[in-house]
Amino acid sequence: MLLDQTVLPTTVRERRCVEVADLVQAIQDLAVRGAPLLGVAGAMGVWLAAQSAPDHPQGLRQYVTEQAARVAAARPTAVNLRWGVEQALGELDRPWASVAEARGRLQAVAERIHRDEVARCLIIGTNGAEALGPVRHLMTQCNAGGLATGGYGTALGVIRVVASRTPGLHVWVPETRPLLQGSRLTAFELAEAGIAHTVVTDNACAALFREGVVDAVVVGADRIAANGDTANKIGTYALAVIAHHHGVPLIVAAPSSTVDPDTSTGAGIIIEQRPASEVTPYGSPARNDAFDVTPAALVRAIVTEHGVLRAPYDLRSVRP
Amino acid sequence: MLLDQTVLPTTVRERRCVEVADLVQAIQDLAVRGAPLLGVAGAMGVWLAAQSAPDHPQGLRQYVTEQAARVAAARPTAVNLRWGVEQALGELDRPWASVAEARGRLQAVAERIHRDEVARCLIIGTNGAEALGPVRHLMTQCNAGGLATGGYGTALGVIRVVASRTPGLHVWVPETRPLLQGSRLTAFELAEAGIAHTVVTDNACAALFREGVVDAVVVGADRIAANGDTANKIGTYALAVIAHHHGVPLIVAAPSSTVDPDTSTGAGIIIEQRPASEVTPYGSPARNDAFDVTPAALVRAIVTEHGVLRAPYDLRSVRP
Repeated sequence: MLLDQTVLPTTVRERRCVEVADLVQAIQDLAVRGAPLLGVAGAMGVWLAAQSAPDHPQGLRQYVTEQAARVAAARPTAVNLRWGVEQALGELDRPWASVAEARGRLQAVAERIHRDEVARCLIIGTNGAEALGPVRHLMTQCNAGGLATGGYGTALGVIRVVASRTPGLHVWVPETRPLLQGSRLTAFELAEAGIAHTVVTDNACAALFREGVVDAVVVGADRIAANGDTANKIGTYALAVIAHHHGVPLIVAAPSSTVDPDTSTGAGIIIEQRPASEVTPYGSPARNDAFDVTPAALVRAIVTEHGVLRAPYDLRSVRP
Repeated sequence: MLLDQTVLPTTVRERRCVEVADLVQAIQDLAVRGAPLLGVAGAMGVWLAAQSAPDHPQGLRQYVTEQAARVAAARPTAVNLRWGVEQALGELDRPWASVAEARGRLQAVAERIHRDEVARCLIIGTNGAEALGPVRHLMTQCNAGGLATGGYGTALGVIRVVASRTPGLHVWVPETRPLLQGSRLTAFELAEAGIAHTVVTDNACAALFREGVVDAVVVGADRIAANGDTANKIGTYALAVIAHHHGVPLIVAAPSSTVDPDTSTGAGIIIEQRPASEVTPYGSPARNDAFDVTPAALVRAIVTEHGVLRAPYDLRSVRP
């Protein structure tokens, strides 16, 4: 059962995934989304495959491996999805005595990743608050909250910790076209948490910096290359350039499972292209990149559960 | 009769304005919009007032003056609206022999302003193409086209002239939240003109600059202060900062009726606040500035029907 994030906040609907194909579709539809939660979904997908797999060891191994590749390929940018699948497959490579034991182990690893992501978010929140220092107005982009992480949130985890220490903290929420995950999901989570916030169009952000009412920007990440270049929701690079122009820091908050030490720079990150119909209902030619890459030079700090990293970044040895 | 721009491009609907109140409502609803067209609408509003006015000179003068103030106050940012009203009222200050003559003169001045804006757009287009030099990919923001000007367009007039001289010219069209006047109106006008274009979210623009596929940005204006600070559709300032960061020129194309020599800097320009409901259907707190101000330092050239101006700008003596 997944909470269908495409219809929030007006409708709370669960979506049932029986087969791997259901989960792949749910991932592609963004019913389940957010880099850390995709790590959990990746491992859950392998477990789901094991449930439909043949009841003999060789058949199970082959079926699960094939299905796992489909899950890992469902979306290209967030490295956590592939990472979650690999964590689960690693469990299959260790000796097991029966297919029942294999299934049990895959369930356990998926549940452990979920617990770990929740625990990581709490530490990331504390680390991020320290990296930021005193602030009154924060801005984020898209949704890197509990909905994206299965827990407390990465960027929103930082915001939650800052809010708990800062009476009167206020958060600017860019609506984040095309799928409005800011105005739909982040605003919803901030309202639930009782944190003051204001939704603005993505277009309106720059003027707020000029007005001097943005002290820092905190965003999540979908993949962080070894040099610190960060792929995140489309529009993050715009905020990074605008923040830099106004001398405002932008920090990235993400679990170490989002770091991809095998991708040396942002140039190696594949950017998912989504349907033009998300952008224009009028049939015009359209281009719809789901992510952009912010170069490390515009990132003031990268906050993981291991601590606060500052430029120049070398993330080649980061491991979750 | 006005073309209702709020339902384009899917519906072509005319909106009838019998009373001044109808026109004020149409202006506030953005059924009629775009700085130069608001100049025409301002003068037309005075003429409309004269048609409902008492049939004796003193009564007509008083009624028209009162109603003209309502028209001029319908929206605060675009100076052309006030300018169009003032042009028409100036006609009332000259001697006239009968109320019929006064009405005829007000009709004539409104029609002259419309003709003049069309003629100005053609010259602005040619001047802007010269200011730009050779380009292959342009970007604009919102709609400064025929729909906004009653003619050939200001920013879109420039694009039309460049397209006529540049085989393969391609235009990036940011959708321009909250009212999508880019993806609804500009994409529609470019398709009608046979100019290649691609709609993108406002969030996606920055990554295109980094990719190197934007040679210049051409925008219209709602008010230009004497020092060159330019109010235009919200999001223009974001594009200006991003263009500056990437060394890409941004030029402003507008008739001299958009210059407000009485406003010394952008700080004196009132920014219209529009309803939060345009931004969020979910009831979240929201802020919805309709415009932002781009400081003159980020404007490579201001193109009017008089020619191409470059920084440092001194527009105190510009008169239409």
